[in-house]
Amino acid sequence: MSPLPESEESVMYDRLVLPDLRVMIAEDDAQGLAEFCEVLHPAGTAEILEELQDDEIWKVLSRCPMPAQVEIFEFLSLQRRIELVSLISRKDLTRLIEEMSPDDRVDLLNRMDEEQVESLLPLIAQAERSDIRKLLSYPEHSAGSIMTTEYASLPEDITVSDAIERLRRQAPDRETIYYVYILGEGRRLDGFISLRDLILARPKAQLADIMRRDVISVHVEDDQEIVAQELAKYDFLAIPVIDSQNQLVGIVTHDDVLDVVREEADEDVYLMAGVAPLEDSYLDTPALTLAWKRGMWLLFLSCVSLMTAEVLNHYSGISDRHMWMILFLPMVLASGGNSGAQSATLIIRSLAVGDSSRVHALQLTRRELGVGGMLGLMLALIGLSAAMFWFRRTFSEAAVVGATMFLVVVMGTVSGALLPLFFRRLGMDPALMSNPLVAAVVDIMGVVTYYTVAIIFLGS
Amino acid sequence: MSPLPESEESVMYDRLVLPDLRVMIAEDDAQGLAEFCEVLHPAGTAEILEELQDDEIWKVLSRCPMPAQVEIFEFLSLQRRIELVSLISRKDLTRLIEEMSPDDRVDLLNRMDEEQVESLLPLIAQAERSDIRKLLSYPEHSAGSIMTTEYASLPEDITVSDAIERLRRQAPDRETIYYVYILGEGRRLDGFISLRDLILARPKAQLADIMRRDVISVHVEDDQEIVAQELAKYDFLAIPVIDSQNQLVGIVTHDDVLDVVREEADEDVYLMAGVAPLEDSYLDTPALTLAWKRGMWLLFLSCVSLMTAEVLNHYSGISDRHMWMILFLPMVLASGGNSGAQSATLIIRSLAVGDSSRVHALQLTRRELGVGGMLGLMLALIGLSAAMFWFRRTFSEAAVVGATMFLVVVMGTVSGALLPLFFRRLGMDPALMSNPLVAAVVDIMGVVTYYTVAIIFLGS
Repeated sequence: MSPLPESEESVMYDRLVLPDLRVMIAEDDAQGLAEFCEVLHPAGTAEILEELQDDEIWKVLSRCPMPAQVEIFEFLSLQRRIELVSLISRKDLTRLIEEMSPDDRVDLLNRMDEEQVESLLPLIAQAERSDIRKLLSYPEHSAGSIMTTEYASLPEDITVSDAIERLRRQAPDRETIYYVYILGEGRRLDGFISLRDLILARPKAQLADIMRRDVISVHVEDDQEIVAQELAKYDFLAIPVIDSQNQLVGIVTHDDVLDVVREEADEDVYLMAGVAPLEDSYLDTPALTLAWKRGMWLLFLSCVSLMTAEVLNHYSGISDRHMWMILFLPMVLASGGNSGAQSATLIIRSLAVGDSSRVHALQLTRRELGVGGMLGLMLALIGLSAAMFWFRRTFSEAAVVGATMFLVVVMGTVSGALLPLFFRRLGMDPALMSNPLVAAVVDIMGVVTYYTVAIIFLGS
Repeated sequence: MSPLPESEESVMYDRLVLPDLRVMIAEDDAQGLAEFCEVLHPAGTAEILEELQDDEIWKVLSRCPMPAQVEIFEFLSLQRRIELVSLISRKDLTRLIEEMSPDDRVDLLNRMDEEQVESLLPLIAQAERSDIRKLLSYPEHSAGSIMTTEYASLPEDITVSDAIERLRRQAPDRETIYYVYILGEGRRLDGFISLRDLILARPKAQLADIMRRDVISVHVEDDQEIVAQELAKYDFLAIPVIDSQNQLVGIVTHDDVLDVVREEADEDVYLMAGVAPLEDSYLDTPALTLAWKRGMWLLFLSCVSLMTAEVLNHYSGISDRHMWMILFLPMVLASGGNSGAQSATLIIRSLAVGDSSRVHALQLTRRELGVGGMLGLMLALIGLSAAMFWFRRTFSEAAVVGATMFLVVVMGTVSGALLPLFFRRLGMDPALMSNPLVAAVVDIMGVVTYYTVAIIFLGS
């Protein structure tokens, strides 16, 4: 990623608007605030509001006419929305939640505390309430948890012109009307048709004749990552979500998938570096939470490092006799760790983008052995010549460094490639703190190799 | 990311279809192949074809009726498309390229070799040719390089019903008709209107009265990451791309942005681990290329490690007297490297998702000092007690380990957080091999700290 002038700009723009806005808030200028809510795209307005205090934000939102109020609220960071919830009167909150789109609404409720939710639900209109209970029931990160129930649907036995007429009526409270799902009895998903096709079709044509029957859908309990992969594969605007009776229960739209892809990428990257995934953005996460989400891994890793110490202890005889060996220890271990982290990263990403079915342990090992061999040779040469000509070691001593570099890089590469597969086999997340863990494991192997090679080349 | 049953399934499905397909290819069953091309969604068909040899793939595609042939071809991996290009007769290739959507077409041509492209262009229809030359001229990763020129546009002085009528005529060769751009003279971007709004509006209404004039757009030379951030921010289906005269030159659609987000995530992750970004997926990249893209970083990093060796050499006096110190060296260095990598990762991701404007070096340092301090204390305790009770060192010796752990973790955390900002300041990519580099830098700092603390606590 590269510097982002654009976002800087938009921030500068915010700075220009803020003073006026603050004045309007101070004077509680009802009309001015109402206008402010509607002059920009809700996302833009939300971005500006993020610069304010929670109470100021609500002072503005409370003056917003209804569609705008919800739209802006939905574009605020989840963090902010949760903070605001505690400020808003239950009456306002109920109204807000009723108007929110089902998926955003559930995201929010999922993060509020049980009692608060339970105390709210009774106030919410029956229809919304049952919808909420249903969506809340789906496991986190499942298709059900990110879908919306506001999809456009039609029966198949009507004409194109009727269809467009009905869509016109459905449109206002549907997340998208660009894909329309054709339902048989019991909301069975029989097919779909795009608004584009409707526009192109003869007005008198029957939907049954022009609808597409090979609907690609996901199951309500599929992982959100599968939803993302399917939608991305077909370049869909939205993908239908069905239950085990093949009934349509919702749709996941492209914008939510975009968020999923980012979220999953973050999660992978964090796990790779040994950070437990954060619920909020880094900047919104309290230092103590950060320390905990990082500390638990560091704790584990330092215990592994103590093994390395133990192993080193075991070889103290040799290290006492060949004290020069300590000089190259960090280089040896780093080379193994770095090449291992590279392999792990490559594998994890190719698993993440869905190549998993093409990734086979054996083929990988062969491949990584090849790459590792080349890298090992290169680093071995560097180690050898550095030891001889820079640090003036004898050839046989330098050979110890070179040979170890080669072996460690090969071992690092292969184990780095296999560790994620191993985790996946265990049903764990392949990205799980791969990089530091690979490094830690390679440290131990590295020490053993280093001293074993020394014994072989220099005699014990 | 988690195991992916779905994709396994779809692969099993491929396995079922493949034998029949291979028979049809062997018999060159024109009708059978033609039907095969149209029975599935092109993305699904492409996925099945990926299992075949290049020549087999073309045997199938060459039998596909025209819209299908291009659609399937566009869903094949870029790697495959490039391999196929060399198999296809120039006549077929010309036809294919003429029919492709402008953005996919340019992706392909960008990866073909100069002469091949130059020899093809004359054969391509004038209209397409100038469009291609134009798109080819935009820098890689710019909005211009990922946009398509097939957008729907209308003048503002017509009624809604006329608009829908015209869209009906434009639709077949437009990437999306769901957003329609309103152009003044000289293709000046004056506003836009969604098909949804058109459907909802009174048929007699004038576009001028219902169009939205606050169009959010990106500049043709903006980085693709800015395009992705803007589209994601506003949940758009597509975002218009304008040149410096505010003329509409193209649009970037949601599906292309999804690819960008994945591509950029990969790039970040690779760079973080010290792998130069790959042009193809890991599995499609030749081992030699991999070795090179990884080797150059390892080379650099091992040179840094030699500095560490040099520094260790400088302290050989102390290490000779306190040979036990070597035992904890790997743990000390690993702790610094790991905590540094964690910080670097957190910062890089928060820059990647566009928080950059909120990230300030000073505030970060304070924050990371806090987190680092907590982590350092924890690890210091482990180091201290392990040294005393496990490895039976004296208290003052154990104190050396503990104090060093604390200092190294704090230094690692802070430098890990600042390195990406430093790279960004230099106009480089903040993710640039952050993790291994932080580790390497921290190695040097770690050794110096370790032995300095030893001198202080144990006397030289």
